Amino acid sequence: MSDDRRPDTARELRSTVTDDGRVTLALRDCEVPPPGPDEVVVRIGAAPINPSDLGMLFAMADLTAAESTGSADAPAVSAPLSDRVLAAQKGRWNTAMPVGNEGGGTVVDAGSSETAQALLGKTVGFLSGNAYATYRTVNVASCLAMHDGTTAEQAAACFVNPLTALGMVETMTAEGHSALVHTVGASNLGRMLQRICIDDGVGLVNIVRRPDHVTELRAGGADHVVDSSADSFRDDLVDALRATGATIAFDAIGGGDLAGTVLSCMEQVASEGDTFSRYGSNVHKQVYIYGGLDRGPTTLRRDFGMNWSVGGWLLTPFLAKLGAEGTERLRRRVADEITTTFASRYGLDVTLEQAVDPDTVRRYARLATGDKALVTPHG
Amino acid sequence: MSDDRRPDTARELRSTVTDDGRVTLALRDCEVPPPGPDEVVVRIGAAPINPSDLGMLFAMADLTAAESTGSADAPAVSAPLSDRVLAAQKGRWNTAMPVGNEGGGTVVDAGSSETAQALLGKTVGFLSGNAYATYRTVNVASCLAMHDGTTAEQAAACFVNPLTALGMVETMTAEGHSALVHTVGASNLGRMLQRICIDDGVGLVNIVRRPDHVTELRAGGADHVVDSSADSFRDDLVDALRATGATIAFDAIGGGDLAGTVLSCMEQVASEGDTFSRYGSNVHKQVYIYGGLDRGPTTLRRDFGMNWSVGGWLLTPFLAKLGAEGTERLRRRVADEITTTFASRYGLDVTLEQAVDPDTVRRYARLATGDKALVTPHG
Repeated sequence: MSDDRRPDTARELRSTVTDDGRVTLALRDCEVPPPGPDEVVVRIGAAPINPSDLGMLFAMADLTAAESTGSADAPAVSAPLSDRVLAAQKGRWNTAMPVGNEGGGTVVDAGSSETAQALLGKTVGFLSGNAYATYRTVNVASCLAMHDGTTAEQAAACFVNPLTALGMVETMTAEGHSALVHTVGASNLGRMLQRICIDDGVGLVNIVRRPDHVTELRAGGADHVVDSSADSFRDDLVDALRATGATIAFDAIGGGDLAGTVLSCMEQVASEGDTFSRYGSNVHKQVYIYGGLDRGPTTLRRDFGMNWSVGGWLLTPFLAKLGAEGTERLRRRVADEITTTFASRYGLDVTLEQAVDPDTVRRYARLATGDKALVTPHG
Repeated sequence: MSDDRRPDTARELRSTVTDDGRVTLALRDCEVPPPGPDEVVVRIGAAPINPSDLGMLFAMADLTAAESTGSADAPAVSAPLSDRVLAAQKGRWNTAMPVGNEGGGTVVDAGSSETAQALLGKTVGFLSGNAYATYRTVNVASCLAMHDGTTAEQAAACFVNPLTALGMVETMTAEGHSALVHTVGASNLGRMLQRICIDDGVGLVNIVRRPDHVTELRAGGADHVVDSSADSFRDDLVDALRATGATIAFDAIGGGDLAGTVLSCMEQVASEGDTFSRYGSNVHKQVYIYGGLDRGPTTLRRDFGMNWSVGGWLLTPFLAKLGAEGTERLRRRVADEITTTFASRYGLDVTLEQAVDPDTVRRYARLATGDKALVTPHG
């Protein structure tokens, strides 16, 4: 079959939590429905494994115990869940859930509408929630058309990280802050955010977890990089907060005391020179948790006065609040700068078959910085 | 000296953190300045010891080691501070800080302005930050005039608890919630809040820490009282949240996992009947921490999706945001209902001298529900 037209069937990954306490990621056949008027069919060239994909893929299973299951035609990987996790996942028990938030590829078939037809033959990125597949029929509203010459791999991660990074700067401004902190500075998203902040003249404090990441980010033009593994971390962070005036942070770690430490250091800077107040400074300090690389509990010592907030931050409600016009402005910037500001890099390519290999699973699920995986369904 | 005119000197309590790592609460003489045009002099009949007073009084000292110091003329109590606490209090080192957020008494002298003269002879409540004293000169804007027949004791707690309780309901409405949770239902503030909610037809979930408080609050008309010491706490809380639709909570405990448990139970109710979403429900869940009865860290397990926020809540910024007109509306209600809706009860009266007795300190600083202390400076 030629690659440039819609097949009737494709291959896809699905993840199922069963009520016996296991999660199984399996490769199987699926239909490729003909496109409706506002739909296109994408031959998927690449789809990233973002941290936000892992929950649906493996439901917080114990992957040290992952093992091959399934058959030659339908290979699968399966792992056990704790009772607590199993109970929390009740809403998805025994349903084969689609996986893969976003991907990139070529439009090989298009519906009758003008907007759909305009995409025929183009490279697009798309946000669909089912991108780990060889072909998908998706709505044009979920696609972002790339300029000529952009590859599927370059387009693959054009939604989640780019719009999240832009969303952080937009949120910072909308909520009255003038500089920000990001707790995973060396991640793909962190590097995008650094490039945005340099272009837009916004102060950014990068927190990283390894000394070599400090060097790397500085080489990329970052002014403020602090290493949370250093003994001087707290002092370094206070200095960077003082230099930038950052009073809002975006945290992808979630667990542990990092969010509280950031608030505490912000409060230290905010109260410098103030007369003593039992309630702390009048400066509002905000941490948004947008990821959970550390699944443990968030611990807040509350040594940062009363003017603070910690909350969840999620892309979709942010875009809904921003509105259609604002979202389109961000999307255009992403398409224009996909090979520069919004470039991603990967440490690992995996085919759909490799994605269900237990050892490969253990590697890509570690989410180690620099070892990010890209699913290449036709790879 | 007659009681009904301004003396030149009075007696007052002051609290000093010294850089050798101790906090000392001492009784001493002070001046009573003649009132400016917009000021009045209050002979203080009573002043409550609120949880919010304790930080200034004892700076989180180890009160098991509290001991008498000072002299017969200037009795005092002193206790050691940990290094960590000492460092956090650097802003007040070696300064004798005034204590006592609010009090009630009789206006015995008044400045030349019409508003000041109108208060002469009246019983007022006042918010001053230095209420543990026999007399104080205060601005009329910090006073709330009581109706005839109201006693100083009844007026003493007319600011902090009443405006905080009203502020919770106002915040609930302003932020789009329709019912609320309060984590110290049996406190004076909790009982006020319950009476407000009955009068205003607002759903309230009271969390209490002892079975007898369930009985007591129910007798007072509360529909939803759950006991956090019961094995069925979580289920009871979920039932009460479902019955009321409460999605905002005000928490005076602060430490431990209560805030997280409330969010988790709210999320359980919010996602009932939803299809599975890896990010949880679309319902925004809010916990405001307005006190710190448990000084330990706040622990959030984040098993409540991404649509949540935990933050500090403080009366003064709330009133500033509400504006002058809104604040006056709340103040009028407090004055009108000070002996009913906003009545407080105390388990212990202490004179200024008794307030520096180590055993008495240990008792009132426990903040046990039903054992709240009232300072009676002329008692």
